[in-house]
Parts: sequence; C-alpha cells; structure tokens
Amino acid sequence: MDQPLDLAALRAQVDTVLRDFLTGKAAAAAVQHLPQEAARALADFLAAGGKRLRPLLCVLGWQAAAGRGPIAPIIQVGAALEMFHAFCLIHDDIMDNSASRRGQPTIHRALAARHADGRTQAAAQRLGTGTAILIGDLALTWSGELLYTADLTAAQLSAVLPLVDIMRTEVMYGQYLDLTSTGHPTDDVERALAIIRYKTAKYTIERPLHIGAALAGASDPFRAALSEFALPIGEAFQMRDDILGVYGNPAQTGKPCLDDLRDGKHTTLVALALRHATPDQRRTLSVLIGDPALGEIAASRIRRLLTDTGAQAAVEQLIQDRWEQAEQVLARAPFSPPAINVLRELAHTALARKK
Amino acid sequence: MDQPLDLAALRAQVDTVLRDFLTGKAAAAAVQHLPQEAARALADFLAAGGKRLRPLLCVLGWQAAAGRGPIAPIIQVGAALEMFHAFCLIHDDIMDNSASRRGQPTIHRALAARHADGRTQAAAQRLGTGTAILIGDLALTWSGELLYTADLTAAQLSAVLPLVDIMRTEVMYGQYLDLTSTGHPTDDVERALAIIRYKTAKYTIERPLHIGAALAGASDPFRAALSEFALPIGEAFQMRDDILGVYGNPAQTGKPCLDDLRDGKHTTLVALALRHATPDQRRTLSVLIGDPALGEIAASRIRRLLTDTGAQAAVEQLIQDRWEQAEQVLARAPFSPPAINVLRELAHTALARKK
Repeated sequence: MDQPLDLAALRAQVDTVLRDFLTGKAAAAAVQHLPQEAARALADFLAAGGKRLRPLLCVLGWQAAAGRGPIAPIIQVGAALEMFHAFCLIHDDIMDNSASRRGQPTIHRALAARHADGRTQAAAQRLGTGTAILIGDLALTWSGELLYTADLTAAQLSAVLPLVDIMRTEVMYGQYLDLTSTGHPTDDVERALAIIRYKTAKYTIERPLHIGAALAGASDPFRAALSEFALPIGEAFQMRDDILGVYGNPAQTGKPCLDDLRDGKHTTLVALALRHATPDQRRTLSVLIGDPALGEIAASRIRRLLTDTGAQAAVEQLIQDRWEQAEQVLARAPFSPPAINVLRELAHTALARKK
Repeated sequence: MDQPLDLAALRAQVDTVLRDFLTGKAAAAAVQHLPQEAARALADFLAAGGKRLRPLLCVLGWQAAAGRGPIAPIIQVGAALEMFHAFCLIHDDIMDNSASRRGQPTIHRALAARHADGRTQAAAQRLGTGTAILIGDLALTWSGELLYTADLTAAQLSAVLPLVDIMRTEVMYGQYLDLTSTGHPTDDVERALAIIRYKTAKYTIERPLHIGAALAGASDPFRAALSEFALPIGEAFQMRDDILGVYGNPAQTGKPCLDDLRDGKHTTLVALALRHATPDQRRTLSVLIGDPALGEIAASRIRRLLTDTGAQAAVEQLIQDRWEQAEQVLARAPFSPPAINVLRELAHTALARKK
C-alpha cells in the first residue's frame, strides 16, 4: 500500500460495510419477529452524515506502519470504530438532552415522536430515551461483532482487542468528566484540557491511528510517534469544535450553536475567559453561561466577552501552536510517505473547517 | 470435574474476580486523575446482592459438557457475564425509572443525590441519569475485557465471542419489546411470552449454559439439549418473577411491589387476565394497570382480579408444566451426572423462591 489513499473511496467502502451489516441485522430481526426499528434507526443515523474520521485514521495508521495484505479487514475494523462512534453520539445526545444532530432530530427525540400515539408526552419522552439507550447499547455490541468478524489473524485480533477496550474506557471517562463539569464551568483550564484529551484527542485521533498501526504489527516506539502527532492535532480539533459551538453557523454545523452555552460546557474557551475576566465580566459570564433559556441577545454578549477577555484569540493561538507541533512531528516521523501527506491534509481540513 | 460443584464457593470466587478487577480499575483511574466514582459505584452495586445465577450456569454448562482443565478461566468468563448483567440492570433501571434495587437506591438515583449540591433538582436528576448511563456503558465494555483476558485458548475464545454477542443482542431486543409494550398491556399472550423468552429464558439460562458448554468444546446437539432444559426453566423463572412483582413481599424481594403494575408491564399474568376477564373486569384492569399513582388499595383490587380471572392460577400452572418438562429433559439428557443434580436443585430454588 504505497499509493496515497483515496479518502472518498475509503469512506464509501466503510459505508457499504455498515449498510450491509445493518441490512443483515434488520433482516435477521424480521425473521425472528423482533423489532427492525433499532437496526433501521441506526442505519438512518449513520446515513445522515459524519466525517468517518476514525475509520480513515485507522486505515491511515495501518498505511503509516507500512501495512501489507488485504485492506478489507482493515476497512471493517474502521467500520467497527464508526459503529462505536454512533453509540457514543447517541448516548451523548441523551445525556446532553440535545435536540438535533447532523441536521436531523436526535434519535431519542425522533423515537419519542414515533411512539407518541396514545401516550402522554412524558411517557413518549421516556420511551424515546429508553429505546435510544438500547439502540446505543446495540451499536456498542455490534461494533464488537464487526471487529471480531473482520477476518483478522489471531495476532491482529489479540493486538487490537486491548486497544479498542482502552479507547472505549477513555472516551467514557472523558464524557464522565465532561458531564460532571457541565453547568459549573470554572477557570480550571487544566480540567478543560483533560476533558479534551480523553474525550477527543485520544478517542478521535490517537487510538484509531494506534489500532490501524497495531493491525500492521507496529512497534511501541512507532505507536509513541503516532501519539506525538495525534494528541496535539486532537486537542486542536476539539478546540476548533468548541469555537464552532459558540461562533459557528448552525446551517453549516448542523447543530444549534447555543447548546454548549446553554448547557454550560466546561470548555477551554470558557475556562480561559473566566481566568482572564475582570470581576464584572466574570459575574456576567457566570450568570449567562449555563442558563437553559439563553437567547440570541445574551449569546452575543457572551461571544463579545469571550473575545474581549482574549479567550477566543488565546484558543486560536493554542490551535495554531498544536498544529505547528504536529507538523514538526510529521517532518521527522517514521511513517510511510503517502500516509504523511494524507495526515497533513486531514489535519489542515480538520483545523481550518467551518463545520 | 466430576465432583458436584460447591455453589457457595463458586459465588465467592466470582465475587473475588469482580472485586479485584474493579479495585484495579479504581486504582488505574486514580493514577490518571480520572474519577474513581464509576468503578466504585459499580463495585458497590455488585456487592449489594444478586444471585450470580449466570456465572453459576456458565460453570454448570462447562461441567455438564464434561469440561476439563483449569476452572479459573471458566470462573472469569462467569464474572464477565455478571458484569454484563450489572450493565443490563443499571440501564434497565434508568429506562424503567426504578427507585430501588437490591434494597438500595438505584445507581441513577444514588448519583443524582450525590451530585445534588449546587444544582437544581432537574439538573441533578439529569446528571444522575447521565453518569448511570456511562457506568452501565463501562460495565458493558469491562465485561468484554474480563472475557478476553480470561486466559482462554484461541479455540475457546472464538467459540464464545459469537455466543456472547448473540446473548447481548437477544437481551437488548427483549428489553426493546418489553419497553415498547409497557404502559399498553393487552391480551396478547404470545407477545408476553416472546418478551420472556428473549429477556429471560435465553439471556438468564440458555446462553450462560451454552457459553459454559462452548468452553468445554460441546457439539451443536449437546447445545440443543441444553436449550431443551433451559428455555422452559427460564420462562418459568420469569413467570415466578412476574408473580412476585405483584404478590411478593417487598421486604423479601428488595424491590417495591407496585412498580410492575404502575408501569403497566406487559406480563403473561396481565395478558391472561385481560384475555379471560369479563368486560367489566377488563375495564377496571385497563384503568388501574399503568396508573403511575397507583396505591395499595387499587393494587389489592388488581390482585383480586388477577386471581378471579384465573390468571394467577393459570400462570402457576404454566410454571408447573415447564418445570415438569425440564425435569423430563434432565432425566434423559447427555449431561454429566453431577451437573444434572445441581441443575435440578437450581431449578427448584429458582421456581419455588419467594424473592
């Protein structure tokens, strides 16, 4: 695999694996007189969008480590990572009580609406949440099935199982930190950075690369080199997300841009603003951030304060620093040259994006 | 392994594996400055009770199939099943909005109380639910880790992974059926039986036995013989649970005995009552069952109607029939004699129990 990867073709291959797998699950449910709703809702969710970043990075990790042999098993492992990601998003949307995702109603909202007939609103909401929890649980289970049916060698399977487990545990802990900090943002920038590291940098970038590299039999020092690239890029990726969550255009991002502020997310942006605010500014931020009824006028005030305290510029600088750090790693990394080019391009797309 | 199993000793061994595993997880979290709350809440939950039925049946399935070699890996697989069961109960309690389990507040209630300081009641409840969803997700992930770190041979691992996956998917579908039927019980006895089959008979009895037998390298016909015993016993086990859910003594069962009626659970007991009720009785049952504010007086009326329609006696008869069917299977089964004795005794304990 010395050719540059065709990312669009890879995405399509991952999507085919996911679609065929879920079509099979829906058919199996029909045969057993079990509800097809779960497999179908999951297929719709996956079809509605997503960057397929984790599958691509998995294949890139394999290519970076000069992986040889058929690519189909690697793509299926990538599909397993995307199925796991669907699990994460579905459960996160429940925990965050989000209304929309990828421009569509979130799964728990959609299912509450589907089962509204003959139920009180509270009962329909509870059922929507319950079925969405189960669909997430099925996605988590099925991500495991995609993994161990990927036609891996025994050596590959035993190399990736522990890594997949570490990845799962890390993102769950990241979400745990995020959840328990939300609503109470403070000036604790280190905590905000820890959330970013576990919930995004490790989960979105580092572990998918590690898993791909493990499939190619990469050594520990090789994995460490991947981490040196992945962690700064992953942190910067999430900081870009946090900025878009406050300043982004909902028509482009597909999610309402007041949610993070209404929820009182403990982001680096907010922590830095609180750290550098005057007492007056801090009071205003503390009153406004986390107000579930926050409107557009108050949001504009917050945006102005995030800018006035220098927090927005500081986060842009942190993104820039990490980007440069990652570039330097790529310049001397032991990765295969075609992988380096794609990683550089992906980093650029992820950090300069508007959605 | 030709000696009868010491069930109390086995339970203790399973508990030691679980306790050591979670102590390790809490210590690892502490080192990484991650919350220890998740591992600790899970350890407390497991320590608060439970029959350890699935681990015992896993070991029994292995013994029934004349398993040879060290028992420690089999016990660890049993512990993995118990960890998975903790996941199921934690998520089920959220979906059912249950207040207590094993005589203690459910995890989502306990965590809501723990994080109440400085939050509105609604925010604390949302956080309790969110962290409990995550603790369930961690339990599901860690059940996988217990499985593949159990020191199984490659042949054992590849035999059990698909079975564990089938088990997981079945119980999730069973819960899906249960959840979407709850609040709207009808006279559809077949649907009630399907819920029982997927949520209990397969999950609690059949699959743990299959998994144990697969660890001993059992053949397909051997597994089929286990199913012939397991499915009737499992169905009877759940019917006993449904009766206890209505007529049981909360001091003995550890759960409030009005929950099933308040939720409007679609049980065989209720479906049979609705099927055999007079129009008057049906009207009364339909008004009372599923009323979230149901009190003890109305519950007594329901109990009387369940008795008067003959539903209670019919369910007792269904339990008896299945018990006898399972006894007949044991009389001619190819299982090892010590396993047969314990299976007979377990069936007796499970079906005649008062809690």
